[in-house]
Amino acid sequence: MPYRQFADQNCSIAAALAVMGERWTLLVMREVLLGRRRFAEIRERVGVAPNILSDRLQTLVEQGLLERLRYGKHPEALEYVPTRKGVDVTPVLIALGRWGDDHAAPLGPPRVYVHTSCNHDAQPQLHCGHCQRPLVPQELKVRPGPGADAAQRAEGLLPIGPLPAADSDQISVASC
Amino acid sequence: MPYRQFADQNCSIAAALAVMGERWTLLVMREVLLGRRRFAEIRERVGVAPNILSDRLQTLVEQGLLERLRYGKHPEALEYVPTRKGVDVTPVLIALGRWGDDHAAPLGPPRVYVHTSCNHDAQPQLHCGHCQRPLVPQELKVRPGPGADAAQRAEGLLPIGPLPAADSDQISVASC
Repeated sequence: MPYRQFADQNCSIAAALAVMGERWTLLVMREVLLGRRRFAEIRERVGVAPNILSDRLQTLVEQGLLERLRYGKHPEALEYVPTRKGVDVTPVLIALGRWGDDHAAPLGPPRVYVHTSCNHDAQPQLHCGHCQRPLVPQELKVRPGPGADAAQRAEGLLPIGPLPAADSDQISVASC
Repeated sequence: MPYRQFADQNCSIAAALAVMGERWTLLVMREVLLGRRRFAEIRERVGVAPNILSDRLQTLVEQGLLERLRYGKHPEALEYVPTRKGVDVTPVLIALGRWGDDHAAPLGPPRVYVHTSCNHDAQPQLHCGHCQRPLVPQELKVRPGPGADAAQRAEGLLPIGPLPAADSDQISVASC
């Protein structure tokens, strides 16, 4: 259970990674959410060793992201179907895919989301649930929430990810 | 480089995981994006061994997500600052945190995003970039994009993550 300790951090990012951060797990979820439900078809598409896939599927069932269903009388006739908790992983995969499209897809996006209710490419983007406008990281801060611990409460309001100031006298040593 | 092979999958999710999927990497990015820039403060907050943190920071610099800056004359006076490519990881962390808030935060969210331009809690949610309405997974499909390979082009339009039908005669064996 190498990722379990992440859950001690009192952080929802770490808590999510404690469940889905292990190698292969998010690729398994990708396939299940695209409709591949059987062990052999998931394995073929993810390119993962059978013992690792068994382990990841078992964790996802135990954690309530997948349900294991039998679709016939044969004991090996099993399907893995996402629960609500599993379908809720979709935004994580969309965000990862968007980053990959922007930074690691020299031939263009391999896959594109379509929004069936407006029948156009969805181009998913984060919006503010209050004012409904698109969110940019520079307009976000983080405050302690109801589940914050004492250290997080003491932090107060933190800005997110400012880029290095152009007039900074800092010296880049990235190539060192 | 155990994650590098993910990049062979012609999938932007796998490509993103090839860069940021290794254990600890996203927690390192969380800290850097919250303004912790020095090795010792990142290490303390992530709770990671120094050799692993060195490795992850090196990868993030090599991949262009962080820049290594010197803020004084002392050779150890280094800071890790996110680039545009690094700041673009923010939606991934937001999506992971949202899942953790919903499914693994029994005391409520430890941290809450604030949208500084409207001065309310941001409650980040995915919207359609075309019609601007909130996206739900059941209204999304996936089509082959410009970078699709032959197999992906043959797949055509795939729905995302339908929940198991209530009238299904499938038998849950999740507890087996």
